[in-house]
Amino acid sequence: MLRKSIIGIVCLLSTLAIAEEGMYPMSDLNRVDLKQIGFQLTANQIFNPDSISITDAIINIGGCTGSFISPQGLILTNHHCAFGAIQQASSTEHDYLTNGFHAKSKTEEFPAKGYTVRITESYRDVSSQILEAVSGDRDFAARTKIKDKKIKEIIAQAEKENPGMRVEISEMFPGRTYMLFMYTYLKDVRLVYAPPIGIGNFGGEEDNWVWPRHTGDFSIMRAYVGPDGKAADYNTANVPYAPRVFLKIDKQGVQENEFAFILGYPGRTYRHTTSHYLDYEESVRMPWIVDWYGYQIEQMETMSKTDRGVAIKLSDRIKGLANTYKNYQGKLQGLRRLDLVEARRQEEAKLQAFIKSDSARQAQYGNLLNEFAAYYQDLHKTSERDMLLDALQRSSALLQTAGTLYQASIELPKPDLERESAYMTRNLDRTKQQLQLILEDYYQPADRLFLGIMMGKLYDLPASLQPHVLRILPGKDKLPDFLDKAFKKSNLHDPKWVMAHFGSSTAELLKTRDPFILLARDLDQDYQMLRELRRARSGRLEQLLAQYVDVKQAYKGESFIPDANSTLRLTYGHIRGYSPRDALYSAPFTTVRGIIEKHTGKDPYQTTDALRAAYAAENFGEYINPALGQVPVDILYDMDTTGGNSGSPVLNAKGDLIGLNFDRAFEATINDYAWSTLYSRSIGVDVRFILWVLDKLSGAEDLLHEMGVK
Amino acid sequence: MLRKSIIGIVCLLSTLAIAEEGMYPMSDLNRVDLKQIGFQLTANQIFNPDSISITDAIINIGGCTGSFISPQGLILTNHHCAFGAIQQASSTEHDYLTNGFHAKSKTEEFPAKGYTVRITESYRDVSSQILEAVSGDRDFAARTKIKDKKIKEIIAQAEKENPGMRVEISEMFPGRTYMLFMYTYLKDVRLVYAPPIGIGNFGGEEDNWVWPRHTGDFSIMRAYVGPDGKAADYNTANVPYAPRVFLKIDKQGVQENEFAFILGYPGRTYRHTTSHYLDYEESVRMPWIVDWYGYQIEQMETMSKTDRGVAIKLSDRIKGLANTYKNYQGKLQGLRRLDLVEARRQEEAKLQAFIKSDSARQAQYGNLLNEFAAYYQDLHKTSERDMLLDALQRSSALLQTAGTLYQASIELPKPDLERESAYMTRNLDRTKQQLQLILEDYYQPADRLFLGIMMGKLYDLPASLQPHVLRILPGKDKLPDFLDKAFKKSNLHDPKWVMAHFGSSTAELLKTRDPFILLARDLDQDYQMLRELRRARSGRLEQLLAQYVDVKQAYKGESFIPDANSTLRLTYGHIRGYSPRDALYSAPFTTVRGIIEKHTGKDPYQTTDALRAAYAAENFGEYINPALGQVPVDILYDMDTTGGNSGSPVLNAKGDLIGLNFDRAFEATINDYAWSTLYSRSIGVDVRFILWVLDKLSGAEDLLHEMGVK
Repeated sequence: MLRKSIIGIVCLLSTLAIAEEGMYPMSDLNRVDLKQIGFQLTANQIFNPDSISITDAIINIGGCTGSFISPQGLILTNHHCAFGAIQQASSTEHDYLTNGFHAKSKTEEFPAKGYTVRITESYRDVSSQILEAVSGDRDFAARTKIKDKKIKEIIAQAEKENPGMRVEISEMFPGRTYMLFMYTYLKDVRLVYAPPIGIGNFGGEEDNWVWPRHTGDFSIMRAYVGPDGKAADYNTANVPYAPRVFLKIDKQGVQENEFAFILGYPGRTYRHTTSHYLDYEESVRMPWIVDWYGYQIEQMETMSKTDRGVAIKLSDRIKGLANTYKNYQGKLQGLRRLDLVEARRQEEAKLQAFIKSDSARQAQYGNLLNEFAAYYQDLHKTSERDMLLDALQRSSALLQTAGTLYQASIELPKPDLERESAYMTRNLDRTKQQLQLILEDYYQPADRLFLGIMMGKLYDLPASLQPHVLRILPGKDKLPDFLDKAFKKSNLHDPKWVMAHFGSSTAELLKTRDPFILLARDLDQDYQMLRELRRARSGRLEQLLAQYVDVKQAYKGESFIPDANSTLRLTYGHIRGYSPRDALYSAPFTTVRGIIEKHTGKDPYQTTDALRAAYAAENFGEYINPALGQVPVDILYDMDTTGGNSGSPVLNAKGDLIGLNFDRAFEATINDYAWSTLYSRSIGVDVRFILWVLDKLSGAEDLLHEMGVK
Repeated sequence: MLRKSIIGIVCLLSTLAIAEEGMYPMSDLNRVDLKQIGFQLTANQIFNPDSISITDAIINIGGCTGSFISPQGLILTNHHCAFGAIQQASSTEHDYLTNGFHAKSKTEEFPAKGYTVRITESYRDVSSQILEAVSGDRDFAARTKIKDKKIKEIIAQAEKENPGMRVEISEMFPGRTYMLFMYTYLKDVRLVYAPPIGIGNFGGEEDNWVWPRHTGDFSIMRAYVGPDGKAADYNTANVPYAPRVFLKIDKQGVQENEFAFILGYPGRTYRHTTSHYLDYEESVRMPWIVDWYGYQIEQMETMSKTDRGVAIKLSDRIKGLANTYKNYQGKLQGLRRLDLVEARRQEEAKLQAFIKSDSARQAQYGNLLNEFAAYYQDLHKTSERDMLLDALQRSSALLQTAGTLYQASIELPKPDLERESAYMTRNLDRTKQQLQLILEDYYQPADRLFLGIMMGKLYDLPASLQPHVLRILPGKDKLPDFLDKAFKKSNLHDPKWVMAHFGSSTAELLKTRDPFILLARDLDQDYQMLRELRRARSGRLEQLLAQYVDVKQAYKGESFIPDANSTLRLTYGHIRGYSPRDALYSAPFTTVRGIIEKHTGKDPYQTTDALRAAYAAENFGEYINPALGQVPVDILYDMDTTGGNSGSPVLNAKGDLIGLNFDRAFEATINDYAWSTLYSRSIGVDVRFILWVLDKLSGAEDLLHEMGVK
């Protein structure tokens, strides 16, 4: 079967255009000739602030993307995006996480606390307002403060003028271009369907960032609004949201080499950066994180072996670290293989020559690359301390909680617009929610071990970098005893205690004499110093990056697409395999047979009995990929995605849904730094697999009917 | 580049004949139409006991295969086959293992102690003599003893009649067909060339049993004889051996889908076995070994982390266990994926129906499969104890040494032909050598740990299976103390002490009061019992297997090729890729670019500076594979090999050397149980890589000249 698919791709590969790099903002759709590329849609049919268009169906749900797939607000997104909701719905009696969830009627739909939906309504350029505010100022830290305040003011004003809307200002090019985005904001979201974990997370952490992949990473939710049709908090009286547009599902799916595109909310990329940044990432920051995360994962896995309860407590934390750990390993491999730092240095040498060739340009930009070098040298000087202070707080749930309580006591008395973003009224609920999530995963031995190691490392810093807190703390030899006592005495492991003290004044907090509150106070000066240092650095870097983009655009004779920043983007390409390494070729479709092949009966390769039975009985219905003679599971394509694109619909030329994006291939993690024709491949669930599971495994006739498939 | 190679294979795959299972003995070459298959050679040109033929160039060297590649006895074999010799040649001043070895003149060639060469001269069927000797006897243990003795007698007689020859009798079909092989036997072998370990063992244990592979697993040795041309022990007066034939090297190498064949000495396969055997392997023996080896590897790796010296001591032992560990995991995966037990059960059901269809056949074979079932049930009954006793001895170098000394004291006084094979005069040197190797790897903490665990498990056996030794040993609670004292007091870690006592009488040994000698004595009754039990079982199983082959051949209407048994075999096939799993395709050539890709600078992915420089300078000479535009490294082919085929020449249709076999793909480990068209793929070094390394990296003009390449 594979043979045929390989013949397919190989024979066509050379005749097709190579997919272009690009996560296009809606404002840049006019840059490409859509028809010539393969679209059967106009730019207006894709995005139109004045009328209905496909993007009305594309939502930001938490940090993920989702899409409306029915007139009654049914949302398709990833299983891993709905994970929190599925976990909330589950209990010891009803293990929906393991067995899957299917609300037989709307009343059975489970409220997904904390989930919200954003729909992009419009955007406008607010660069001049912001840049004007900071012009002339020489103190970089002050610049950053002024800029942050200005942004908050514009948002507050816009939200006041557009009640019910959520407004965000996004930096398209740092120090250069700022866009204001207006979002419809829905707050009542419910869980409708989740497949069993043996489908939704088949392959688990082992297969994360891996192709060939066999994960049915999908779930279905629904958005609700008040009876008046307006956004409302959860209420049983609420009614399903009627989206202006919902996506049509093409149950024929897709074929190899077919054109496709993705709409979604990609998080962050770092392409408009210099070699110095990549070098810093490759040689300093990522190896440090890989070491530290690797150690923590190893320790927590050992702790998990002894006790199932501990294993459950630590699983989320391990999963989070492991995701980054593997991603960074992929990136480090990619940086090395593509020799990206050297490649970018060579580009910069050419840019430098271009600058030198014109005396006015030389006067303006002649020193720019040296300034970048100086910036990263400066960063490097304190990096060991800075990474340590960051990691210190994250190493311990109790210290992190104490830090949040303490900072809240300082920020909350300030006027709203002057607070750190996390403590502004509009973000306060989320900040509290995160605190609770952190404490849910608290496990004392892990907390104690990691905090002890990180604090110990503070003492090993060179004298010039030692933080202020060391003048207060006992000597390194007394540290173990100090920490043992602190953990014994602290109340911060108790979520009720914590919530009761969220919003207390600094004096009240200190009166509790909780050792972690006191430690947070003792550390406060260091973290204040670090925030101030970073404001200064950020101001400096923004100025450099703005100039860099200006001169590089002049050099290239073209304008650039901004790096991803969680705003709505379009990327296009083809269903296409690749060669991950010498002598290996990955085809762009996996099949249900591959699930059977991988199934060991043990986590993470434990599929469901229903799937195995349907496979054995060849109960495939109309969901076979005729080229493979099998039900396809996942698909691979050369589109440009990153984190945040999870849950994005994969659409065919007409804009019909043929897949659901959820991951990238291991080699494609490098995509965040540079597009690679060889390696940039993203992974989605084939719509035929979704429909097969709903139809043949779950008997979800109701949903198929609502989606217009049956 | 890969694209082209995939087009190649895919477009041709369906037009070519599928390679047939088969490790053909020379006596079976007439079974196939050589010309029609693709040979440009006749059977007589391949093997001819009365004249010269290609097999005169094929040698058994240790447990490996090698081939003569010059008129002066130059031998090409694997790096891992010459590993012991390279290690012997190395010292702290001259680390040839790391840096490679190249004798600039014959006087610099390094004597490879313990290496011998066997060349197959002739064979003859001796089945009737052996079967006659055992006919009529009902006691299976007695049968086995008589058979073993008869074999020894025939060998002794034949060696007497053919002085200088080595004679072996090999069981082609157990209980049914026995062949006597006559071998020229050379005893002076020297190391001529070894690549640096970063080439010869690139990828190390990580890449073992893995495709795509990038290991240059080759080395060059030379055979010497006395000035009279006869086999002789090492002597500086010896002269290079002039083989009757040496292989011509085809520096054009090979192309995808090209026909090729292999001559060599494959060790053991298990294809003419029943479902009961496979089931026992899959559900009892292999999981037990995987558990126990996995534990030992983990423990020894932890011990190795603390101390480089310990790491070196344990590396051989870890390597040995890891090789089996990974091989068994591959086999277990293959058994599961192909559902071999069930497939064989279905075959057996058909065989049973065939038997039943004829009353005479039913009378003779009607109960055969039931008897197999009973045999394996019986085996299963004592398997826990039997595996434990086997593992117990191997768990400790000291106990193994003590056991050998003790058994020698019992066997050596017997007449030569009545001794256990290892203690016969012709095998005594090897037995002593193995003792020394075992003690070289001795590391007390590992020995103590593993022995303690295995002895502890003896106590946990059900009462009916508890060995006799437990009546002598102290209770389980006293075991740790008993062992600590034994290790403290024993002299067996001292090779000199051991060699001085090899051959001592039982009384003398016991007089030393060495605690391990006493333990070996206490265990002797159990091991005697086990040997006797196995003689009985072996006699019973042989009879069943003989009948099974008879009736199965009748059923199939054809005669079978015997399982591999370390005798000379031919296998043929094509240079061909495969799909290891859903959505993945492995092409049959790797390239030097892949080495650069894998190179991390850290063991096991640390290639040499010379290789990287030559790659960077594109100093490829004439060694490029034109279809890939790269120097090829390793090749993949659908030929039927197993352990013992290491070092086998891969030959083209004309019999010229185009590669050097050294491993199988992970999925092909299942090959030992059943040929699989999908998965049976073996791995060799491409001759162009060998020549490129010799020419461009090592400047070995002399060798290239002697080989007739330059």
